[in-house]
Amino acid sequence: MRETRVERRRGEIRRDAMAAIRKLGLRRAGMREIAGAAGLSAGNLYYYWKSKEALVADCQEATLDALHAVLAEARKQPTAAARLASLVRGHLGVLLDQEGGAAGDVHLDFGDLPAPLYRRVVAKRDRYERAVRTMIAEGQRRGELRPGDPKLAAFALLGALNWAARWYRPGGTFTVGQVADHFVPQLLEGLIEHESRAHQAAR
Amino acid sequence: MRETRVERRRGEIRRDAMAAIRKLGLRRAGMREIAGAAGLSAGNLYYYWKSKEALVADCQEATLDALHAVLAEARKQPTAAARLASLVRGHLGVLLDQEGGAAGDVHLDFGDLPAPLYRRVVAKRDRYERAVRTMIAEGQRRGELRPGDPKLAAFALLGALNWAARWYRPGGTFTVGQVADHFVPQLLEGLIEHESRAHQAAR
Repeated sequence: MRETRVERRRGEIRRDAMAAIRKLGLRRAGMREIAGAAGLSAGNLYYYWKSKEALVADCQEATLDALHAVLAEARKQPTAAARLASLVRGHLGVLLDQEGGAAGDVHLDFGDLPAPLYRRVVAKRDRYERAVRTMIAEGQRRGELRPGDPKLAAFALLGALNWAARWYRPGGTFTVGQVADHFVPQLLEGLIEHESRAHQAAR
Repeated sequence: MRETRVERRRGEIRRDAMAAIRKLGLRRAGMREIAGAAGLSAGNLYYYWKSKEALVADCQEATLDALHAVLAEARKQPTAAARLASLVRGHLGVLLDQEGGAAGDVHLDFGDLPAPLYRRVVAKRDRYERAVRTMIAEGQRRGELRPGDPKLAAFALLGALNWAARWYRPGGTFTVGQVADHFVPQLLEGLIEHESRAHQAAR
């Protein structure tokens, strides 16, 4: 799908607005402050989004679209272990790296959206979470992953990833790559069914 | 330390208030609504806490005190694996079970506290997180846990646990015990150094 000029401009302004939201704090920032911190006029911001809620929901949708793209990329991997490793790296990349980490801030905070926007964003998030569960369930069926409840397995995995947006500071102690290099083995070891263990079980 | 009658009464009211906060939503509830939902007079609530912020900070401290008690209990276990398993079960128990799950709601939401209360609660939370890191670092030094950055290891582990407060619904699909039974092996497998693997490395 080709991006139109309006969509591209909207995306640019959204990125600036998200960086401003991160700096100001999601709950405290109003449209005027967001516009000011992003170097835009309030009118310019209101041209694209009729309210702060609409802007925030749009940011959350953009983040979820990026996560769905991560998922599509992960699915191309040949094994369940490689698919999950790709997902962990991609999910962390979206939350911690995109828009200077603002994606993660906004991603975690659905509570204040009005009902219609909330439903739309949460439906997209639920589709993502269900797809991760399906990825795990398929790996379990093929014997590549350990048996277990795929819902709980996905919650534990995604929880560790989502929580990273709470403590990670861009430019701090760790690069996103270092976090991913640590998280992939730590979080996947408990999911992967190693051949040696399968052999032990068969004995 | 003996609890005085006032402290006990304060604890009871706090539990009722936390249940009310969970029902009403932390950000929306005011002192009057919290009192109403908890079946108390606003005056009774204000007798113990001069503001909603003071009440919320007190709830958060109570949750953190319970987590520190979990830590003390976990430290009594003989191995690093057993200590971490005890910690995972205890942490989930505090966040998901205590006060009908309200402990978890409140635990996750420090952002709105005024600076002095915020500093106090965050200092207590940081002491807990540092102690978990130390537990992991000690296990790594003794060769019971895999080598790695104890800070990242603790973040991944605690993230999965804290996130459970976001999705868990008391009386829903899973009991807290079922979540713990699933999370302990999934989250600890990537941390524990198995003897068989140590042998392989030594070969």
